[in-house]
Formats: sequence, structure tokens, C-alpha cells
Amino acid sequence: MKLTEMTLTQFSETLASKAPAPGGGSVAALNAAVGAALIHMVCALTVGKEKYAEYEDFVRSTMTAAEKLTSCSLNTVDSDTDAYNEVTKVFSMPKNTDEEKAARSAAMQKALKACTATPLCVMTCALKALNLISDSVDKLNKNAVSDIGVAVLNLKTAVQSAWLNVLINLGGIKDADFVSESRSNGEAILAEALPLADKIYETILREL
Amino acid sequence: MKLTEMTLTQFSETLASKAPAPGGGSVAALNAAVGAALIHMVCALTVGKEKYAEYEDFVRSTMTAAEKLTSCSLNTVDSDTDAYNEVTKVFSMPKNTDEEKAARSAAMQKALKACTATPLCVMTCALKALNLISDSVDKLNKNAVSDIGVAVLNLKTAVQSAWLNVLINLGGIKDADFVSESRSNGEAILAEALPLADKIYETILREL
Repeated sequence: MKLTEMTLTQFSETLASKAPAPGGGSVAALNAAVGAALIHMVCALTVGKEKYAEYEDFVRSTMTAAEKLTSCSLNTVDSDTDAYNEVTKVFSMPKNTDEEKAARSAAMQKALKACTATPLCVMTCALKALNLISDSVDKLNKNAVSDIGVAVLNLKTAVQSAWLNVLINLGGIKDADFVSESRSNGEAILAEALPLADKIYETILREL
Repeated sequence: MKLTEMTLTQFSETLASKAPAPGGGSVAALNAAVGAALIHMVCALTVGKEKYAEYEDFVRSTMTAAEKLTSCSLNTVDSDTDAYNEVTKVFSMPKNTDEEKAARSAAMQKALKACTATPLCVMTCALKALNLISDSVDKLNKNAVSDIGVAVLNLKTAVQSAWLNVLINLGGIKDADFVSESRSNGEAILAEALPLADKIYETILREL
């Protein structure tokens, strides 16, 4: 059963179970999805309001972008767990002969690389969503400012949570170039996303 | 339909819609639920392992506490939205006569106080969950350290998100004693939870 087709109660129970997936990787993706969905909500609470009429087109385009990011992040809730389940399959591969050991090791490296790709995708989506907020925050319905704040917090947590998942998987990868490139990509996103999130959050906190 | 009985996809669509609830308050509760569920998962990945046998009883009691906090937080996903929907009902109350105005104003004050109680409950639950982690982090399965990190991030975000919801509702409450007490309660939780979350997160980050 797909995780996104589970109820919140079922997802929470499945998460709490001793199966290692879904775990922090899928939660990071859910954080990003929820953050992007909140952007969409606040845009929807803004369009059609006379007070914000001059921003109508801009807010509509933000809403479309937020919808795409929600959908992409929600898909990653499942794809992150799918990626981890491939690692689990490798654990049951035979390791009696040198050939079997080599095949097992190669399969593990491939599976771990796939497990690095999904959280990096979450980091990218969450940064895009934070940039959407940064560009639109002064054009959105002020009555929903706390919702934008919650979106910012969830997106920051999505970035940081996904980064922890990148790091734990990189720890098992032998391809030094892949490790170095993934680390650089992640660090570049962190360097942009975290100060941006903090700046918007502090501004919102002062308004409340 | 209860939010907790919606699939992740349905919840995300309902959140994204122009209905103001569910909004940031329910998301704050979901963050706390997911964080507590991850604690339960890591405990479940620890019990029965020889390496952690000496902590077995302690980890089992942590697991029981995490389950209760998950359940309580998950209930608040719905109760926060229920509380906000009472505010919406007040908007449609008549305000033609002085009596109607007084009744409407009293109903609004009551509804806003209820909307302050749910995020304060989320803050309390999330702080308890952070304390559970603080007390158990060195006794849990090291292979799942990134999952504990994600739990910490979600719980910190739950506290901060809920606080934004406390603040926006306090803004409309006229009872100065209630405002002052709620603010003190929230600030005391923030003062304990945020440094605790940051300390655990930084420790985990260094281990990865």
C-alpha cells in the first residue's frame, strides 16, 4: 500500500512500527509537502480579495508553483521508502562466494546512491518553496501570516531532515566523487535555505 | 470527515484549499505526532537487541510514553481544526442589536480561548517528547540516529509552529490575565524546548 494512500492514523502507526522505512526520509518529504500545501492555502485565501487585487496574477502563479511542489514532495514520501526497501533487499542477497560478495556490494552501492537522491530532491523542493514564500510574503493575506510562518518552519525542517538522511547514506558510499558532489549540493542548499527560512520566520514573529 | 481519517493525499489537498482550517495549527499537531512516532520506531528498533539489553526496560517505558504522545498529538490535529471552526461559526452570528453584538463578542472570546488551548497542548506534548529523547538518546539503536534527528527537528517545529498559533489567537483576546498567563506558559516551554532541541540536533549532526 502506498504511504500517501494511508490515513494520517495509519501512516503514524506504520512510521512508529519497527520497520526502518518509512522513517525520517519519508517524514522529511511529508514536511516539504505540508509546507508547500500551506503556501497554496494562503494564496487561495488571497486571490479574489480586493485588498490584494494588484498582486492577483503573481499570487496565482505562486499558487500553481506551490501545487507542483506539494505533489512532487508527496510522491517522495513513497519514493524515499521504496529506495530504502531496496537496501533491505540487498541484506538478503547471498554472500558465500567472491562473486556473490561482489554482486552484493555493487547492489548495496547502487541502492545507497538512490537513497541519497530522494532526500536531495526533498531539499531542492523545500528550497524552491522557501523562495516562493520569500518572493510573495508581502503580497499574501495578512490574516494568514501564522500559516505562512508554519510553512516556513516545516520547509526548514524538511531541508534539515533530508540532509540528515543524505549524510547517513553517504556514510556507506565508496564512490568518493559521488560523495563529494552530493555533499556540495546539499551544503549549497543548506547555506541558502536556512538563513532564508530564519529571516522570514523572524519577520513573521515580529508581526504577531 | 476527521482529518486523521484522511489519506496523506487528501489531507494535503484539504490543507491546500482556501478553507482556513485545517491550517498551521493542525500542521503543528501533525509535526508533534510524527516526531513522537519516530521516537517509538527507534525504540522498537532497539528493544530485543543484545547490544542494548541493559537499557531494555528503560527503552520499553520510553516507547510507551512515545505512543501516548503520538496519540494525543494526532487527536489535536482534529481538535485544533474543530476549535477554529467554532470561530468561523461566530462570524455568521447576527450583530444587529446590542444584545446580539454582546453575545457575538462573548462567543468569539470563548472560541479564541479554545483556539489558544490546542496549540499550547501541542507545545506541552512536543516538549515532553523532546525530554523523552534527551533522556534516552544514548540508549537507542545508533543505526537509526538520523531518525532521532528528524524526530527532534519535527518536535522543535511543532513547538514553534504551535507558538505562532498561540500568538495569533491571543491577539484577539481581551482578557488580559488569560493573555498574560498563556504567554508565560508558552514562553516557558519555548525557553526549555528550543535549546534542548538544538543541543540534541547538533550532537546528532556531529555523529553523522
